[in-house]
Amino acid sequence: MDIIKEFFQNGGAILSIPWTFVILEIISTMAGAVSGARLASAKQFDLFGALIVGIATACGGGTMRDLLIGKTPFWLENPIYLLTCVFGLLWVIIFRKLLVRQNNTWFIFDCIGFSLFNVIGLQKSLALGFPTWAAICLGCITGAGGGIIRDILINEVPLIFRKEIYATCCLVGGIIYVFFLDIGWTEEGCAAISCSVAITIRLLAVKYQWSLPHLKAEE
Amino acid sequence: MDIIKEFFQNGGAILSIPWTFVILEIISTMAGAVSGARLASAKQFDLFGALIVGIATACGGGTMRDLLIGKTPFWLENPIYLLTCVFGLLWVIIFRKLLVRQNNTWFIFDCIGFSLFNVIGLQKSLALGFPTWAAICLGCITGAGGGIIRDILINEVPLIFRKEIYATCCLVGGIIYVFFLDIGWTEEGCAAISCSVAITIRLLAVKYQWSLPHLKAEE
Amino acid sequence: MDIIKEFFQNGGAILSIPWTFVILEIISTMAGAVSGARLASAKQFDLFGALIVGIATACGGGTMRDLLIGKTPFWLENPIYLLTCVFGLLWVIIFRKLLVRQNNTWFIFDCIGFSLFNVIGLQKSLALGFPTWAAICLGCITGAGGGIIRDILINEVPLIFRKEIYATCCLVGGIIYVFFLDIGWTEEGCAAISCSVAITIRLLAVKYQWSLPHLKAEE
Repeated sequence: MDIIKEFFQNGGAILSIPWTFVILEIISTMAGAVSGARLASAKQFDLFGALIVGIATACGGGTMRDLLIGKTPFWLENPIYLLTCVFGLLWVIIFRKLLVRQNNTWFIFDCIGFSLFNVIGLQKSLALGFPTWAAICLGCITGAGGGIIRDILINEVPLIFRKEIYATCCLVGGIIYVFFLDIGWTEEGCAAISCSVAITIRLLAVKYQWSLPHLKAEE
Repeated sequence: MDIIKEFFQNGGAILSIPWTFVILEIISTMAGAVSGARLASAKQFDLFGALIVGIATACGGGTMRDLLIGKTPFWLENPIYLLTCVFGLLWVIIFRKLLVRQNNTWFIFDCIGFSLFNVIGLQKSLALGFPTWAAICLGCITGAGGGIIRDILINEVPLIFRKEIYATCCLVGGIIYVFFLDIGWTEEGCAAISCSVAITIRLLAVKYQWSLPHLKAEE
Repeated sequence: MDIIKEFFQNGGAILSIPWTFVILEIISTMAGAVSGARLASAKQFDLFGALIVGIATACGGGTMRDLLIGKTPFWLENPIYLLTCVFGLLWVIIFRKLLVRQNNTWFIFDCIGFSLFNVIGLQKSLALGFPTWAAICLGCITGAGGGIIRDILINEVPLIFRKEIYATCCLVGGIIYVFFLDIGWTEEGCAAISCSVAITIRLLAVKYQWSLPHLKAEE
């Protein structure tokens, strides 16, 4: 038990590797851009349209969060995010015929993305002094908002309102983050366990086709 | 005549009962959440989707206003609004079969809601020093914005652009508010008369099927 | 060559006529409002819906920019923009049967509009200290954002993602602006050449049906 308690109290420290985080954030951004560009191509968008939908998918959630908390959107402060989206579009163009075979890889990257964006949103909101419940909401918006904006731009009913338990995973990930932060874990440890749990739930949900109950329409 | 003049000059004072206002705001928020969740259920949204559409309907107009005037969205400063939306969703689930019978009640609550949100938007904008015409616009956005965001999320053409005179009522309510404020009424009195007139126009409009003229399409 | 160099270094000065700019901005705003109201009338929107879509088309891009850069939206600081949109709606009502014949005129005004809004967005962002690449992005958002919001409100897939090279012209116009600013032109000169090039490309694109390549859908 002491080992577990000690692990719970120090678990995060060993994971504090900034460059891992940067790489994961780039991969997450690219996964969003690829997802947006692929859906845009299915709707006969031109290159520019595909790029915008890609950017909106990758950066839309974080932009909503930044507008809500009164900060300059993150992608206006560092060109790396937009450049990554351009690179994501190039990837879709070049590997068009291989993308279907890469589906599992991109799905994993997408999972890393939403769970990581969730944690980033949470951390940024907590750092600005928002209460815990508000930070969890802002985390969910960061993680799930991009997909909603993407679906509005391609004129579809947002997928996450009907088929996926995307946002539920964000919510669970957020609660886990603040719980472990509360018992003294480092931010890195909280981020690692929050992402791990959120990704695991999502993988299980897709494998076993879990979904939230649907509201029955009125007669 | 003196009585009328006196009433016009002091009319608001007797209505200055803060807890009435709080109760009305909660009922209004819940009416928005119920409206959003019902429309979402007609589109086979899951529970989470219905909750988000409910929140967007109830809080969307105020969020647009707060972003435009550079304030932190009100629902991030007090958890009561999101909790009310959760409660609204529970209501829709529990009373699903009775909702049609409650239609008139919810319609009244919805009327209270849009007229009250209109006034809240106006007051908040005036308090920040916006000119009267801008405050009236921001009141309309607060009152009518939620319905527009709701319809974008469920991928429908916004209803208020076609069938209802919703926003026209907001405009009339806003003009009445600033007129009575100008002649010296208290904020509470202005709010009461603004809401009363806006609700009355809307009830008459629904009863007698008033609508604004439609633009004829070009040949 | 000296003449060209001298022109390049002083070209802008002679164009510094503020009232020209004001008139052009009003015409641009009205072109947006007319475009929005016409599309709204094709969807059987009522007068209020047509006005809102007109305002969203004319002022939506600038509003997105102002929210992103943390400024109060420009149309809340001066009533001239909303009044111009009301005037645009009246124009559509009064000249309904003649609008088709005015198509070429409104197309020119629309071209002036997007290229001018692009430059305004660029200037405003640079003045606030945003880096050049971010200012070019914000210029594109100012120039092309209104059309995207318009199409979301009328529940269509945004036109500029599929058929027009609108945003590409904004991008080229923005790059030209910052290039000539860098070599010492005045802001007015940069604005004039940026708009001229952007408008010329767009006119040529429409005449010769240029478009960006479309992404091929996956099998």
